[in-house]
Amino acid sequence: MNYSLVIHILGYVLVTEGGLFLLPMTAAVIYGEQAWYVWLLFALATALIGFLMTRVKMKNGRLVQRDGNIAVALSWLVMSFIGALPFVVLGDIPNYLDALFETVSGFTTTGASILPAVEGLNHSSLFWRSLTHWVGGMGVFILIMSFLPLTGSSTIHLMRAESPGYSVDRMVPRLRDTAKKLYTIYLIITAAEIVCLILSGMKVFDSFCLTFGTVGTGGFGVRNDSLASYTPLQQYIVTLFMILSGVNYAAYFALAAKRPKDALKNQEVRMYLLIFAATSAVITANLMGLFAPDGARHTGFFEALRHAMFQTGSIMTTTGYSTADYDLWPGLSKSLLLALMIIGACAGSTGGGFKISRLMIVLKEIKREILLIFHPNSVQNVRMEGHQLSRDTIRTMNVFTLSYCVIFAVSVILISVDNFDMTTNITAVAATFNNIGPGLAAVGPVRNYAAFSGFSKVILIFDMLCGRLELFPMLTILVPAAWKKR
Amino acid sequence: MNYSLVIHILGYVLVTEGGLFLLPMTAAVIYGEQAWYVWLLFALATALIGFLMTRVKMKNGRLVQRDGNIAVALSWLVMSFIGALPFVVLGDIPNYLDALFETVSGFTTTGASILPAVEGLNHSSLFWRSLTHWVGGMGVFILIMSFLPLTGSSTIHLMRAESPGYSVDRMVPRLRDTAKKLYTIYLIITAAEIVCLILSGMKVFDSFCLTFGTVGTGGFGVRNDSLASYTPLQQYIVTLFMILSGVNYAAYFALAAKRPKDALKNQEVRMYLLIFAATSAVITANLMGLFAPDGARHTGFFEALRHAMFQTGSIMTTTGYSTADYDLWPGLSKSLLLALMIIGACAGSTGGGFKISRLMIVLKEIKREILLIFHPNSVQNVRMEGHQLSRDTIRTMNVFTLSYCVIFAVSVILISVDNFDMTTNITAVAATFNNIGPGLAAVGPVRNYAAFSGFSKVILIFDMLCGRLELFPMLTILVPAAWKKR
Repeated sequence: MNYSLVIHILGYVLVTEGGLFLLPMTAAVIYGEQAWYVWLLFALATALIGFLMTRVKMKNGRLVQRDGNIAVALSWLVMSFIGALPFVVLGDIPNYLDALFETVSGFTTTGASILPAVEGLNHSSLFWRSLTHWVGGMGVFILIMSFLPLTGSSTIHLMRAESPGYSVDRMVPRLRDTAKKLYTIYLIITAAEIVCLILSGMKVFDSFCLTFGTVGTGGFGVRNDSLASYTPLQQYIVTLFMILSGVNYAAYFALAAKRPKDALKNQEVRMYLLIFAATSAVITANLMGLFAPDGARHTGFFEALRHAMFQTGSIMTTTGYSTADYDLWPGLSKSLLLALMIIGACAGSTGGGFKISRLMIVLKEIKREILLIFHPNSVQNVRMEGHQLSRDTIRTMNVFTLSYCVIFAVSVILISVDNFDMTTNITAVAATFNNIGPGLAAVGPVRNYAAFSGFSKVILIFDMLCGRLELFPMLTILVPAAWKKR
Repeated sequence: MNYSLVIHILGYVLVTEGGLFLLPMTAAVIYGEQAWYVWLLFALATALIGFLMTRVKMKNGRLVQRDGNIAVALSWLVMSFIGALPFVVLGDIPNYLDALFETVSGFTTTGASILPAVEGLNHSSLFWRSLTHWVGGMGVFILIMSFLPLTGSSTIHLMRAESPGYSVDRMVPRLRDTAKKLYTIYLIITAAEIVCLILSGMKVFDSFCLTFGTVGTGGFGVRNDSLASYTPLQQYIVTLFMILSGVNYAAYFALAAKRPKDALKNQEVRMYLLIFAATSAVITANLMGLFAPDGARHTGFFEALRHAMFQTGSIMTTTGYSTADYDLWPGLSKSLLLALMIIGACAGSTGGGFKISRLMIVLKEIKREILLIFHPNSVQNVRMEGHQLSRDTIRTMNVFTLSYCVIFAVSVILISVDNFDMTTNITAVAATFNNIGPGLAAVGPVRNYAAFSGFSKVILIFDMLCGRLELFPMLTILVPAAWKKR
């Protein structure tokens, strides 16, 4: 790797994280926490180290994809290593590995927690925990590019390595403008949800934290029962914003550019909404009996609908909030939710998972293969959003899918040394790898990841990062050749 | 489809099945069953119908891959529909859908049973049940081509559609010779195991039935406890022949052609043996505590080794016999077995599953993609067994994998309407789709598939056929265009 360049980039990341530490410090001051100065010290120290790193002389400024992958993977690791420290110092999460798990879970917008209860934590810690979702949702490099002078044509490799899905490349001609526009849209959605939640009567603190978890599709809450004890209106508001956050931002770009027809024509978004509606409907029907035990069929329907929509939206967008313990739901609902865990949200959204567009391409590839059986000599192309996909795109997509399956399977085998049941093993990997948070059985929505061994936690931390960064950056740093000086 | 040609081919299949019915008839006569004439009537009726179908005039003898797929899929369906009838008539399996499940499970060499106990069944039924494994293992068309005058260059499409894996194409120049050689090898292995088992003191009837289940990698037994109550020596013999049956027959071809070096150089076979040895070792270590409760460490080791080797071999070759209830084994052993269920045996063997060679190609593709990150402008080829794989081969392989994942996921969702636990749903699909037989939890080795609803049984029947015929033939007949007259 190009060490001086990577150190340079890490420097910018640390300066940014230093700045971000000022926000939980503010929360600490507002809520009268004595240890507010801890945040200040971390802010100053992190920013100072980062600043010094940006002063390192660069030998060769050209960044290739390999170094982009390495820089992004290392940035996320370093960001998490440092971001976990305040939890330990403040005593909210005394064990460092647990704090690291929680922080990686935050930045990767997973929302898987090792905390059995969160209501006793410092407000500043809770705020930081939720803020990591917000930062990780859109990506730290898009944040940096919007505000700091990290420029040069080579930054495309950073964005490419960090962006979810394959479609974010240059929505507007200049990369920096793209980053700024993305962040503006992100800020507007964030502000809108905060206002809606405050207007619904939610506490300001909860409104901020839950919004960070929603728009980043993270899932950390501030109550022990996630969202179960909020009002139905508040749950509906969160459902709406979860769905909005799982939409491909290309659609918002089109809206911002006053091309509403383009937004409506987006195939991926249409499929996404279709899957959401269909699954919600099936789960509602499947739950009817559960919520109308006294024969009140009418109430039963609306109860079932609300929980079905919330959980479907939460899992599909890979957020991970819950209003009900869906681990107790019937088998069909559970397996649909498991399928949605893997499918995930739109590419180019803040959501994780395999992504709707990839699923669509996979189905189109299968269709093409069957057509080839019927018409062996015809030329069959795979098209998506009006464009014909190149051979290289399809190859990379296929290898992505193959790698996804292999990493998934190996992870399940590795964490099974902890001797949990198969459902726990499979859904723990599904829920971390796809950045959802809760799974089923021992990692269900009312449980947590504390019981796993240190070894398994390390595996799951890897899975969270691997899933958020779309495999290849994390795979790149596993190759010894990546560490050779160039 | 080319109706007259497909009818013609189905005719040959029925004539063959009619002939096969004479074998359980013989068993019925030997064991003094009064209803032996049932088998004779079925034999005559089936052969007669088949003969009449072969007399249908063919309009156009050329068979294309599409019609090959259709002919093979329909042949397996018709063969199963008819093969299930004697079970119903004899009263051994009164319900037709259950009898069909059992027969499809037999022909596809799955070995998943709806019978809670088999020891009360007629000998002739047990014999037929095991014989279906033997026929299905090597494939009915290879049998037909060895003995009946079904020739013509177009028969390659039949063989291609029916053979497990992609490598069986023309091992020797003439297809008919290939079929004959394959059957000769198959008969030699079959005879060798029968002799070994009889010499070990096993009853002749059991020796035949268990051998059919072993060499076809099926898994139907003749005792209620599968292989648990046979002697350790007999279990070791079966282990050995299971492993031999999971080997790519190309290796045996090389041996038969006196090219032992080629057999030893086969990459797939080497990987297969490596995975078997490594998994057996890990599971043995994982089981040590289980089999040495009184501290007898020495006996514990050999007990653990025997059960580990047997179960690893049985699952990996997709046979499905068991000597122990591995559903009670520790988490690591279970998830390794689940992984082996999916990986399966060598291509070009009688075993099922995804196949070792496909896994190797997948891993090579991932390696190539990572190398491309490091050397973007280099040309990286995927090679297997000394040959460079063509783009089309890789594309078909990738689409196979994608289809595999989609069918797997959809099947799990569909059978989850029965409200079993997640482990049951996932392993029931894994065990039928990969033609193993028993899974975990409610479909574990000491349980059966009787409790599933009719709907789920139909799904699992589809999965068994889909897995045995390597997806595309079954997918082809699902396309409405397949049924259009040409």
